Amino acid sequence: MRVLVPFDASEPKTRLSDVLDRRERAEFAYAMLEDVLSAVRESGEEPELLATAPLADERDVTVPVTVDDRPLSPAINDVLAGADEPVAVVMADLALARPADLHRLFDADGEVVAVPGRGGGTNALVVRHPEFRVDYHGVSFRDHRKVAARIGAAFSVFDSHRLATDIDERSDLVELLLHGAGHAADWLDAAGFRLAETGGRVTVQRTDDSDSERLK
Amino acid sequence: MRVLVPFDASEPKTRLSDVLDRRERAEFAYAMLEDVLSAVRESGEEPELLATAPLADERDVTVPVTVDDRPLSPAINDVLAGADEPVAVVMADLALARPADLHRLFDADGEVVAVPGRGGGTNALVVRHPEFRVDYHGVSFRDHRKVAARIGAAFSVFDSHRLATDIDERSDLVELLLHGAGHAADWLDAAGFRLAETGGRVTVQRTDDSDSERLK
Repeated sequence: MRVLVPFDASEPKTRLSDVLDRRERAEFAYAMLEDVLSAVRESGEEPELLATAPLADERDVTVPVTVDDRPLSPAINDVLAGADEPVAVVMADLALARPADLHRLFDADGEVVAVPGRGGGTNALVVRHPEFRVDYHGVSFRDHRKVAARIGAAFSVFDSHRLATDIDERSDLVELLLHGAGHAADWLDAAGFRLAETGGRVTVQRTDDSDSERLK
Repeated sequence: MRVLVPFDASEPKTRLSDVLDRRERAEFAYAMLEDVLSAVRESGEEPELLATAPLADERDVTVPVTVDDRPLSPAINDVLAGADEPVAVVMADLALARPADLHRLFDADGEVVAVPGRGGGTNALVVRHPEFRVDYHGVSFRDHRKVAARIGAAFSVFDSHRLATDIDERSDLVELLLHGAGHAADWLDAAGFRLAETGGRVTVQRTDDSDSERLK
């Protein structure tokens, strides 16, 4: 099985700009990427990075990198079209993914196995049908289900809160602080993020006790 | 195993007041309750309703009802203190819960099995340790983990996007429209709620084509 990890190397995590500046967003995105690549590797597969731009050279990402500056869907679909084995796609911001979660996912039955992300996205896919193509625009989870139905591919849904949690927005940081254990969770902690109780759902606040050395 | 379903019969779902009026919130809450009770029953267990107030008499809830107007934690803890068998607690707003999900949960190993809810809550629990007590105030998932550690109870986490999705806020309605199939999803659809694409995460909008008869 090939495991693609798409990564926005140009301007990652813009929806976190209310709580992180541009340099911080890049740092945080790389920390999540590192966690995801490790989890894939420890699950027993070899990840391949599909990046929108060359990675900053100081990064120590020891996996094959393909640079493709097109939007995500055509870049992935080119791989699917040329693949002669199953292909998995795992988003680079699934910072709660553990090796065992990914192992179960890669092992799950189905010609198309989809992991819904919160808010209609598709956080991960396993594709074992030659005609299946992705469309990440819009309500992609619903669209992927339709595509599978149209080509007669057996579609199954992988139900996981950890894998449903892509870290895109401020409220997602709560999940990482509560359930995370890798570089990204450490980074967030060092940046001074703490849980904050507000009466309703827990949110995050940023304190002044961030470890500024750590964030250099 | 006893399965408690706590229900706020007084003023349910206040955090949906930006999109539903008071009468609608009650209707919607009852629709979700009906879905949860059915799912518990079809999973092979008999649910018991723990309500904060007597139910409106026109409701056709054919399960044992205990009225306890205290806050949730002491009400549940009284049951735990007197129980001589495992006790599960399943929130009444888990409108995505299917019988198979609950069956797997009730069957999961652990003296305390907890289902994290999005935002630090505890959406469901299975308690098989005589000393475990709940505390739903604040970041309850973290607190329940601490309580289990303190009393030496084996704590396990049940990872499910469906069960992590309690329907509390507007953004949760997206999940129900996308992944739901019961009375609550039907109610929402009849009330005119539709998915709306905004560029980031999908959200909901309310259209005028609601079925007003259905909502009477």
